[in-house]
Amino acid sequence: MSEKKENEDLHYDTYLRLDSFLECQIPQSLKLGGQLVHDEHLFITTHQAFELWFKQILVEIDSVREMFHHEFEVVESKMLYIVRRLGRVAAIFKLIIEQFHILETMTPIDYMDFRYYLKPASGFQSLQFRCLENKLGVVEDLRRYKDAYKDEFIDEKSKTILAESINSPSLADLVEKWLENIPVLNDHGFDILQSYKNAFLKWTKDTILDPAMNERDAKRKEKMMTEYNKQADIIDVMFEDVDKKTEHRRMSSKALTGALMISLYREEPRFNQPFQMLTLLKEVDSLMAKWRDTHVSMVHRMIGQKPGVGYCSSGYLYLRSTCSDNYAIFPDLINMPTYLMPRVYYPQLPETLKQKLAFAHNSQT
Amino acid sequence: MSEKKENEDLHYDTYLRLDSFLECQIPQSLKLGGQLVHDEHLFITTHQAFELWFKQILVEIDSVREMFHHEFEVVESKMLYIVRRLGRVAAIFKLIIEQFHILETMTPIDYMDFRYYLKPASGFQSLQFRCLENKLGVVEDLRRYKDAYKDEFIDEKSKTILAESINSPSLADLVEKWLENIPVLNDHGFDILQSYKNAFLKWTKDTILDPAMNERDAKRKEKMMTEYNKQADIIDVMFEDVDKKTEHRRMSSKALTGALMISLYREEPRFNQPFQMLTLLKEVDSLMAKWRDTHVSMVHRMIGQKPGVGYCSSGYLYLRSTCSDNYAIFPDLINMPTYLMPRVYYPQLPETLKQKLAFAHNSQT
Amino acid sequence: MSEKKENEDLHYDTYLRLDSFLECQIPQSLKLGGQLVHDEHLFITTHQAFELWFKQILVEIDSVREMFHHEFEVVESKMLYIVRRLGRVAAIFKLIIEQFHILETMTPIDYMDFRYYLKPASGFQSLQFRCLENKLGVVEDLRRYKDAYKDEFIDEKSKTILAESINSPSLADLVEKWLENIPVLNDHGFDILQSYKNAFLKWTKDTILDPAMNERDAKRKEKMMTEYNKQADIIDVMFEDVDKKTEHRRMSSKALTGALMISLYREEPRFNQPFQMLTLLKEVDSLMAKWRDTHVSMVHRMIGQKPGVGYCSSGYLYLRSTCSDNYAIFPDLINMPTYLMPRVYYPQLPETLKQKLAFAHNSQT
Amino acid sequence: MSEKKENEDLHYDTYLRLDSFLECQIPQSLKLGGQLVHDEHLFITTHQAFELWFKQILVEIDSVREMFHHEFEVVESKMLYIVRRLGRVAAIFKLIIEQFHILETMTPIDYMDFRYYLKPASGFQSLQFRCLENKLGVVEDLRRYKDAYKDEFIDEKSKTILAESINSPSLADLVEKWLENIPVLNDHGFDILQSYKNAFLKWTKDTILDPAMNERDAKRKEKMMTEYNKQADIIDVMFEDVDKKTEHRRMSSKALTGALMISLYREEPRFNQPFQMLTLLKEVDSLMAKWRDTHVSMVHRMIGQKPGVGYCSSGYLYLRSTCSDNYAIFPDLINMPTYLMPRVYYPQLPETLKQKLAFAHNSQT
Repeated sequence: MSEKKENEDLHYDTYLRLDSFLECQIPQSLKLGGQLVHDEHLFITTHQAFELWFKQILVEIDSVREMFHHEFEVVESKMLYIVRRLGRVAAIFKLIIEQFHILETMTPIDYMDFRYYLKPASGFQSLQFRCLENKLGVVEDLRRYKDAYKDEFIDEKSKTILAESINSPSLADLVEKWLENIPVLNDHGFDILQSYKNAFLKWTKDTILDPAMNERDAKRKEKMMTEYNKQADIIDVMFEDVDKKTEHRRMSSKALTGALMISLYREEPRFNQPFQMLTLLKEVDSLMAKWRDTHVSMVHRMIGQKPGVGYCSSGYLYLRSTCSDNYAIFPDLINMPTYLMPRVYYPQLPETLKQKLAFAHNSQT
Repeated sequence: MSEKKENEDLHYDTYLRLDSFLECQIPQSLKLGGQLVHDEHLFITTHQAFELWFKQILVEIDSVREMFHHEFEVVESKMLYIVRRLGRVAAIFKLIIEQFHILETMTPIDYMDFRYYLKPASGFQSLQFRCLENKLGVVEDLRRYKDAYKDEFIDEKSKTILAESINSPSLADLVEKWLENIPVLNDHGFDILQSYKNAFLKWTKDTILDPAMNERDAKRKEKMMTEYNKQADIIDVMFEDVDKKTEHRRMSSKALTGALMISLYREEPRFNQPFQMLTLLKEVDSLMAKWRDTHVSMVHRMIGQKPGVGYCSSGYLYLRSTCSDNYAIFPDLINMPTYLMPRVYYPQLPETLKQKLAFAHNSQT
Repeated sequence: MSEKKENEDLHYDTYLRLDSFLECQIPQSLKLGGQLVHDEHLFITTHQAFELWFKQILVEIDSVREMFHHEFEVVESKMLYIVRRLGRVAAIFKLIIEQFHILETMTPIDYMDFRYYLKPASGFQSLQFRCLENKLGVVEDLRRYKDAYKDEFIDEKSKTILAESINSPSLADLVEKWLENIPVLNDHGFDILQSYKNAFLKWTKDTILDPAMNERDAKRKEKMMTEYNKQADIIDVMFEDVDKKTEHRRMSSKALTGALMISLYREEPRFNQPFQMLTLLKEVDSLMAKWRDTHVSMVHRMIGQKPGVGYCSSGYLYLRSTCSDNYAIFPDLINMPTYLMPRVYYPQLPETLKQKLAFAHNSQT
Repeated sequence: MSEKKENEDLHYDTYLRLDSFLECQIPQSLKLGGQLVHDEHLFITTHQAFELWFKQILVEIDSVREMFHHEFEVVESKMLYIVRRLGRVAAIFKLIIEQFHILETMTPIDYMDFRYYLKPASGFQSLQFRCLENKLGVVEDLRRYKDAYKDEFIDEKSKTILAESINSPSLADLVEKWLENIPVLNDHGFDILQSYKNAFLKWTKDTILDPAMNERDAKRKEKMMTEYNKQADIIDVMFEDVDKKTEHRRMSSKALTGALMISLYREEPRFNQPFQMLTLLKEVDSLMAKWRDTHVSMVHRMIGQKPGVGYCSSGYLYLRSTCSDNYAIFPDLINMPTYLMPRVYYPQLPETLKQKLAFAHNSQT
């Protein structure tokens, strides 16, 4: 850790490679049209800033994925870092959502003055964005242009990088696997899922069925009975394993049960950090969706209903279509509140199980 | 302006009515359940903060609407205030969009502990939000629950306030009327719309038709011809008067021509501020949409696919349906880029007309 | 948890007490001058929004302080909530710092039109802000107007509330006491402070003293020796107990040692959440300071160097004086990096101690 | 404007030079220590993002400065662009202030693990930041390390760029010159400064002197008289020309009078946009100060009171010293509220002068 001689002259500029870094802003309007259109510089800067932050998000997500490539308890021992890095990813997303406000200081009129010089380049061709989607866990089969989007990447290096992002386990995959392995599931004679279902039915009975029985107004009674039957079904449906990933269901029943368990018993020491992690995974998912929403709104204001500049996309309408739950990463976690109930109905944890979730000094073994 | 004696003892608390103001946070969980659920206080605070800012936005929008209730040149003389107040409305919207981040520090599990105490109250019942929609210019016929939403307001006072918001001219109405009256439209023998259409056709010819003529690849040529024909139609369609307001078209052809004129010739002194105004109107429209998007995303995370607490709404899915262009305020302005073209093709303003748009000291009359 | 009959008609407006809440905005310009100055409404709204959020922060801080009123391990079991509520406080501070941007849409010229109607009311008289300072842990003796600030509160109720905020243990007090009680300090024959000091000296020797010994340039050598001696002193100074709280030192040596221990060994399960807590305490402290900075900057732009409206304050210059480390809450934590060193130098935890910090299932006892 | 053949294959990656751009993130910890310290990547990314946006701000400020290099009326005709570009600069500053939140997701402990690899590079060496200060108008003589800061730049290219930024007229210089040339100053027999002084004295008499005369309490009366005398002096002092630029006064009396005139009569058409410009200049100034405040706070949290890594700076304490009015750009504009008074006291504009400030179509000449 001693200061290395060879480093003696490290300068801020050298460290940050500013010589190269600040020479990458080359307007097409100047190159092709012979005259700089002032706002093109902003256009380039903003897009480069997006790419710079995408790279940072990828660094964080890759490091989190790497941490998940271990057995359950090793992952657990790294939970502080997982939580902090997901928190950072969320912070970066918040920033780059704000960043659209800057691009919006450019008016459509100004954009029109250089837009045609950019043809056929298109944001559709951002390799890092595709990798980010894939590494988080966007499902290939639910994409709008499942194959077309790959055709944008022609050189071997890009193709390889993209393929790797598709083929390696996504964050969603890894989280699912980890949740399936929570050791206390179905342990100690405590079947959490069945206990929860029973409790849920009791709650539904108390708050819908019983009042319905006492309801004299027939129409109102019928409405309540319908609601009761719907509720009684919901919990089964939500926990069924699915053959094919959909916009609403992805995770295995077992993993989802693990997530439910962490949520209900978040106060147990071993679940403190995993609960924070689940919360952050949902936040990152929401923020990614918010980035898409904000992007499409900006594009709409900039080009109206004009087609996209590349031949690959239909502009606003294509982007609009990606703002759907098809592109969600953790729909099962986001939808969990559908079958939540007030705390007083939660099944109680057996004492032996509580011990397993405690700190050592509190353990009576 | 002298200091009034009777004011001698004005205290910060008295001025802000903090005694009443800070006593309006009364949790239902405490009242009905006998025990405060901690996070309900946050829930109340956040909603009150929304209502407080909605009121401020209404104050600003009302003042802007009032300024538009005059003849063209009087409005013009107040343009600085219109621009500044719209800028303030945009700033407030940005803040209250951020505000959702705070509500999101509450997890669904915590919400479930007091949610049922609130039944059947619902955000669907915010009078100020409805007034805001109406005063900006949401079109009654394009609402998803055109009549149902009114049924939420039962007392006479609320009904009157709501009716007034529907019946008085909206900001969108007033802006439209003002744009129709730009005095230089069709003036001085200069028909801006016809000139623009001609220029647009020339641009389309230069950049699509001519290259198509020289294209040897038949398939590619056909594609280009299709695009050319589509473009040639677009400008007529976009400027047609509509019988019935739709998600894409609202403004009269004349008003839209006025908006186009301001945009193209924004450098003329008289159009400087109106151009800023048009830009801000679009920004407010986008921000209102962003508020809806963020709201629906928060609701989704909080209740999943549970129905809304009130009997009036289906929760997430209803809210999702309001995130559409049906609820846009200025779709014609937002869509204007569809038929914009590069600046070099703009028709030139006649010199006499330029004079009309100049400052007095530059005028040679 | 069944739905209460008496609640049947709860309406959004009733729940939020909007009738009273939205009637608290009463401009003085209208009352005294007979004519509303438009921007006064914004002025009132913004200040009320601050007070609304101050109340929420107080609710959160009070709940956290309440949780600290228990013995060490009980506090530990609530750490998830402490962390989440401090995170919420940070989120609220971020929002209300942004909120100044809205007030800044009012220009000084507009403010002048109603400013004199407000005399002698002043932001100096915000009771909640004073309580917030006191409950977080601003030190009475380090305040600029130690007694004067209390004179602003005349009625008995306010006086009592203020006194209670001064006399009850602040968050800083409670955190200090908790840190002193980390059970593993000086336990198991491991004296963390002494071990750390030794390691720090070794690091200093390796990176400054040894290179100095090999340095031939006399002047440079002297400079390095000075630096070495300074560094060697620093760690003693930083951990001395202080008789009197200063801008730099507040905590007991023992508490500070506890904080250091948590920071160094944050990866041990029992320290995961306490580490997050320490990080958030520093963040809240920084954000409070940032709120002050932003406030003073806004005041400066609004009134220049005019004295404050109340007789109590000298306006900009007074506020400027509160933007100092005297008003910091956790200066010891903020200054901890002064004596941090790279991880490789950290003393190693004895295995028996590591066991005490582990989860039960990993414990081999 | 036709689509160029040679551009046919433009790809998003090529346009943005992503190949070079995304290879500029090279951690020293990997290079020197042989092992990547995870958080160094974030450190690099954040600093590069700052530099990227600094470059964009420089592009905007340079373009604004260029527009000011013309005679008064030419500048006036470009006012829409000046206003919009300053608005963009403000938007960028808001973003990069937010950006610190991201760096703050790195804890001091993590920073310590790579900090020593960076020695002696330092943020003190950012050429673009120095250019930005100089081009906006930081005064060389008011800098804390007037000459030392230049010594950081050793190569000829950097030296030349820095010298150019010092020697060419700053934005503050150019704005001052423009304000001096407002044609209607001292025109038409209307001496605005003298008229304003008279009005100010009348206001002071009405609101302080007259009430003092009627005051029976001697002590109170004396206090009021002191205040009266102070106020009566203030306006003279504020408008005196200064020999040497100070933290409070920079602009010539004539320029300041121009700024006052624009502010008072902002409703006249010709002053609409200049008023917006003055408001934005103050906002940019405040935001630059806020960037410094936020930076110093981040540095404090990251290194405590450790000295800076470069030999050039003393870290936190040096940075703290730059958070002062010495580094302000437009102190005269920021301080203008000191001598503002309520609108009813403003001197009335002569009708002939009003004509000069009107639009042509309203002119009766």
